[in-house]
Amino acid sequence: MTNKKEKIAGIIIIGNEILSGRTKDLNTSSISIWLNSLGIKVKEVRVIPDNEQTIINTVNELRKKFDYIFTSGGIGPTHDDITAPSLSKAFNLTYGPHKEAYKILESYYKPGEFNEGRQRMAWMPTEAKLILNPTSGAPGFYVENVFCLPGVPSILQAMLGGLSNKLVGGLPIISHTINLRTVESEIAKPLTFVQDNNKDVDIGSYPFFKAGKLGVSIVLRSENQSKINVCNSQILDFVNKKKIEILKNN
Amino acid sequence: MTNKKEKIAGIIIIGNEILSGRTKDLNTSSISIWLNSLGIKVKEVRVIPDNEQTIINTVNELRKKFDYIFTSGGIGPTHDDITAPSLSKAFNLTYGPHKEAYKILESYYKPGEFNEGRQRMAWMPTEAKLILNPTSGAPGFYVENVFCLPGVPSILQAMLGGLSNKLVGGLPIISHTINLRTVESEIAKPLTFVQDNNKDVDIGSYPFFKAGKLGVSIVLRSENQSKINVCNSQILDFVNKKKIEILKNN
Repeated sequence: MTNKKEKIAGIIIIGNEILSGRTKDLNTSSISIWLNSLGIKVKEVRVIPDNEQTIINTVNELRKKFDYIFTSGGIGPTHDDITAPSLSKAFNLTYGPHKEAYKILESYYKPGEFNEGRQRMAWMPTEAKLILNPTSGAPGFYVENVFCLPGVPSILQAMLGGLSNKLVGGLPIISHTINLRTVESEIAKPLTFVQDNNKDVDIGSYPFFKAGKLGVSIVLRSENQSKINVCNSQILDFVNKKKIEILKNN
Repeated sequence: MTNKKEKIAGIIIIGNEILSGRTKDLNTSSISIWLNSLGIKVKEVRVIPDNEQTIINTVNELRKKFDYIFTSGGIGPTHDDITAPSLSKAFNLTYGPHKEAYKILESYYKPGEFNEGRQRMAWMPTEAKLILNPTSGAPGFYVENVFCLPGVPSILQAMLGGLSNKLVGGLPIISHTINLRTVESEIAKPLTFVQDNNKDVDIGSYPFFKAGKLGVSIVLRSENQSKINVCNSQILDFVNKKKIEILKNN
C-alpha cells in the first residue's frame, strides 16, 4: 500500500448570515464528506464576514497552510457579494469580466435577460479557471489552490462532483461507528486505553439523546481498514466485559 | 440614546466530528442569536480539531482580538475532551479538580455513581469561574473573557441563559427581513444604491428556493430602529416601482 503524503484542506465560509445566526452552515458538512471520499482531511473552518480586508487576509493566511482551500458564499450579483474582487486582490490579479464565464452566462439566459446584474456574475480574476455549475448557470472559479463556490447549499453540492478530478487526494478516509447504550463516563477509561494503543486511528466519542434515551457513538477514523478492525475488536472486548448494549447503526 | 462602544465576540467550535462532516454545527447559530439579543456581534467563528496546541494557539490569538470568546465542545469525560487542560495551558493556570465543580457533581450523582470518569469533569483551571448546567450537572467554566461550553446543542442552549448577566453588551441588534418574489440580479443595482446611502445598516441579500419557487430575502440589521425604517422604505420604493411581489414573512 503506497503511503501518500496526507492532504489537508481548509474551508472559509463567507457570510454575515451565518455569523448573525440567521442561517445554519450546511456547506462545511457537504464539502468535508466529499473531501473525505477523496482522501483529503479538513483541518480548519473559518466563518468570516462580508468584509474585503478580512477575506483577503484569511485567504492569504490559509492558502499557505493547507493544500486546498474552499470558500463558500459571496459570488452572487448583489453588493454584499465580494468574494471575487477580494480574491483578485489577494492574488494580485486583474478583476474583470471573464471571457469564458461571460459566454456561459450569455447563452444560459434568454436574449434580453442577460442584464447588468447577471453580467456581474462573470466578473472575477480574469485568469481564474472555472468551476461549472450544472444547476443555475453562474460558474464558480479557482485560482491556484483556492476554490470559490456559492453559498446556496444545493447549488454548491451540485458543483462539487465536477471538481473531483481537479484535486490530488490520498487514501479515502474510512469511518466506522459503534453505537452504545451507555454514558461517556462509563467507558472513558478503557477507551483512553484503546486510543493509546491505536495511535493511527482517530477515536471520537459523542454522547447522544435519541427517543428519550442516552447513548454514545464511538467513531473510528483511519485510512487503513485493518487498523480500524483491530481497534474495533478491542472496543468490543471491553464493551462485552462491561455488558454494555450495542445498538444498531442507522 | 447612548452610543456604547460596539461589543464583539468570536466562537471556537472544538471537534473532529464537525470537521469530518459527520455532525453539522448548530451551536454557532444558538450562540449568535443569543449574543445579538445582548447587543454583541459575532465577528468570526473557527472550527478546529481536538488538538491541544491548536486549541491553545487559537484561544490565545482570538481572546486578544474580541471582547468575548465562546468555545463549544471537548469538556466531557473521554480522552478526546481536552478543552479544559488546553485552556489551563493557554492561560498558564493550574489544571486540577475544581472544588466547587467537584461538589456540584458529587451531589448530582447517586452515592457510588460518582466514578473516576465523572470526577474528570470537575478537572479544569482550578481558578476558573463556573457556568451552571441546569440540564446534566457538569458545569462549564470561564477564565477572563473565554467561556467554555459543551458541544451537545441542547445542553449548551440551556446554559446560555444563566450567562447573560456575566456579559456587558451594547444595544440589541435589530433585524428586519423583506421577502421578495424576484431574483438577485433584478434588484442588485437599486439595492447597492440603498446600501451606499445607509452605511449604518447592514443589508444582506439571500436567494432562496421555497415550494419550487425562487425568491430573495433582504435582511436589514442595525442597533437603530429608525435607521432600519428609513432603509426599509427606500427598498419598498424601488420594489413597488419594479412591481415586485412582496411575500409574507414566516
